[in-house]
Amino acid sequence: MDEFKIACCQMNVINDKKSNITHAKELIEEASSNGVELVTLPEMFNTPYDNNKFIENAEEEENSYTLNKMCDIAQDNNILLQAGSIPELEDDKIYNTAYLIDNRGKIIAKHRKVHLFDIDTPTMKFTESDTLSAGNTITTVKTHLATISLAICYDIRFNEFWTIMNQHETDIVLLPGAFNKTTGPLHWETLIRARAIDNQSFVVATSPSQINNEYYVAWGHSMIVDAWGRIISKAEEKEEIIYGNLDPESINTVREQIPILKNKRNDLYETIYKKEL
Amino acid sequence: MDEFKIACCQMNVINDKKSNITHAKELIEEASSNGVELVTLPEMFNTPYDNNKFIENAEEEENSYTLNKMCDIAQDNNILLQAGSIPELEDDKIYNTAYLIDNRGKIIAKHRKVHLFDIDTPTMKFTESDTLSAGNTITTVKTHLATISLAICYDIRFNEFWTIMNQHETDIVLLPGAFNKTTGPLHWETLIRARAIDNQSFVVATSPSQINNEYYVAWGHSMIVDAWGRIISKAEEKEEIIYGNLDPESINTVREQIPILKNKRNDLYETIYKKEL
Repeated sequence: MDEFKIACCQMNVINDKKSNITHAKELIEEASSNGVELVTLPEMFNTPYDNNKFIENAEEEENSYTLNKMCDIAQDNNILLQAGSIPELEDDKIYNTAYLIDNRGKIIAKHRKVHLFDIDTPTMKFTESDTLSAGNTITTVKTHLATISLAICYDIRFNEFWTIMNQHETDIVLLPGAFNKTTGPLHWETLIRARAIDNQSFVVATSPSQINNEYYVAWGHSMIVDAWGRIISKAEEKEEIIYGNLDPESINTVREQIPILKNKRNDLYETIYKKEL
Repeated sequence: MDEFKIACCQMNVINDKKSNITHAKELIEEASSNGVELVTLPEMFNTPYDNNKFIENAEEEENSYTLNKMCDIAQDNNILLQAGSIPELEDDKIYNTAYLIDNRGKIIAKHRKVHLFDIDTPTMKFTESDTLSAGNTITTVKTHLATISLAICYDIRFNEFWTIMNQHETDIVLLPGAFNKTTGPLHWETLIRARAIDNQSFVVATSPSQINNEYYVAWGHSMIVDAWGRIISKAEEKEEIIYGNLDPESINTVREQIPILKNKRNDLYETIYKKEL
C-alpha cells in the first residue's frame, strides 16, 4: 500500500455542540486543503468531558445531527474521517463511541469504548461508569489506505486489548483520547509509544486541546507515532493541526528487523479473544 | 512490607572473567556499605556479549566458579543478590541465566532467558539463537522483601510474558539487560516505564556500562522505575552504582487510584499461561 498523509485536529472543545461541529468542520477543511487522505478528531469533540454533558449531548446514531454533519464533511472533502468520539444513545444507554466515515460519507466502523475511565487520584477523580456503558468488541476495518483499528483513551492502558487488535492485522490504531494534567505527563506519551513498539504499528492519538474550562481539562499533546515508536509529529497544549506521512510498508521493515511478532512464545502464553467478530 | 533500599551496579564488563567477578565484588561491597538490602548486576556480567565468548565462559551451575563467588559475596554482605546473568551450561546447551541469591548464600531462583535476541537492523545484527537455548518458564519468587520476578533483556519486549508475571503477583521485576546504541535510544526507557505502568509494579533494569569494545557495546542507562512508571534513579553511559528506595505498599496506592487490573475486561480477552510452574 502507498504512503499517505494524515492530519490530527487537536481542537478547542467548548460547551456548545453546534459550535464544536462548525469548528471541527473548519479544521477538517483546513487539513484537507493540505492534501491529507485521513483526518482525526478528539475524544468527545462535540461536548465537554462531563457526565451531565454526555447525557445532555447524547444522540441516537440514526438521525444524529453530529454524524450527519460529519458524513457530509467527509464526502465533501473526499477524505476518510475518524470523527473522534461522541456520546451515543441507544436503548437508554449512552456509549463513548468513535466512528470512521469513508469518502462517500458512509460510516464504515464504530467503536464503543471498551474500558470505562474510573480513576480516583488526589488530583483527579472521574467516574465514567456513572453515566456510560461499555462496548464489547475490538473494532478493525480494512480501508483503501490500510487496516485501521479504533480505540478510545483509557483503552490504551490494556495491552491485551492491543494484542488482540494486532492479531487482527492492524496497521494503524486511531485513538481519540483525553488524558488530563495528572495522567498526561506521567503516562500519555510513554503508553502511545509503547503500544506502537509492542505491536509494530502506527498509533495516532488525538486529544482535545488543553483549555481551561469548568469541566475537565484535557492534556493535549496529540501525536502521530510510527511502528518504531518514533514520534513523527506532536502537538503541545494549544489547538493545532498536526500532520504526518504514513507508509504502511515501513511496518514490514520494522517487523523484519526486530522480529518480535515471530519471536513470541505462543507455546508458553497466548492472548485469546473471547468474542470473535 | 517495609520500604527497602536497592542498588544497581552498571559495571564495565571486560574480556576477563575473573576480573569481572572481582570487579563485581568491589561494586557490591560499595553498595552494601550504603545500607542496601538488594543489589543487582547486569546481563552477562562475567563475559563480553559475544556468541563465541558465551561458549568460552559458560559454566555448569554445580561447581560454577562465578556462582560460588556470588553466593559467598551475598552471604558476606548479608544481601539479596540478583547476580545479573551468565552463560550457563547444561547437557551441551548454553542458556542466558539470571540468578537470585539470598543472604545466606543460597540460590533461590533462576531464570533462563525465554526470548532469544535475534535482530538484524542496518546498524545492529545479533543472533543469540546461534549459540543459546531458550528457557521455558516465568520465574517468580516470594522473598522477605517482596515478590520478585526475573526477566532478561529481550524478554521486556513481550508484554504477554509480563502479564503472566503480573498474574503471579509480582511486586518487582529485576531485569538484567543489554540494549545497544540502536535499540537503546529508541526503546529502552519507554519499554521499562511502560511495563511498570501496565503492571503497576517496580522495574529495575541493570545494564553493563557503555564502553567501547570489540564485541557488543551496551546502551547503559540502568534505571529503577516505580509502579507509577516514574524514574526513581537512572544511570548515564558510564559505570555507576544507582540507588533507590522501594516501598511495596505504594503498589497498592497506584492500583487503587488507577484500577487497571480491576478494569481489565477478562470477559473479552485473557492471557493464558500454558506451562504452570
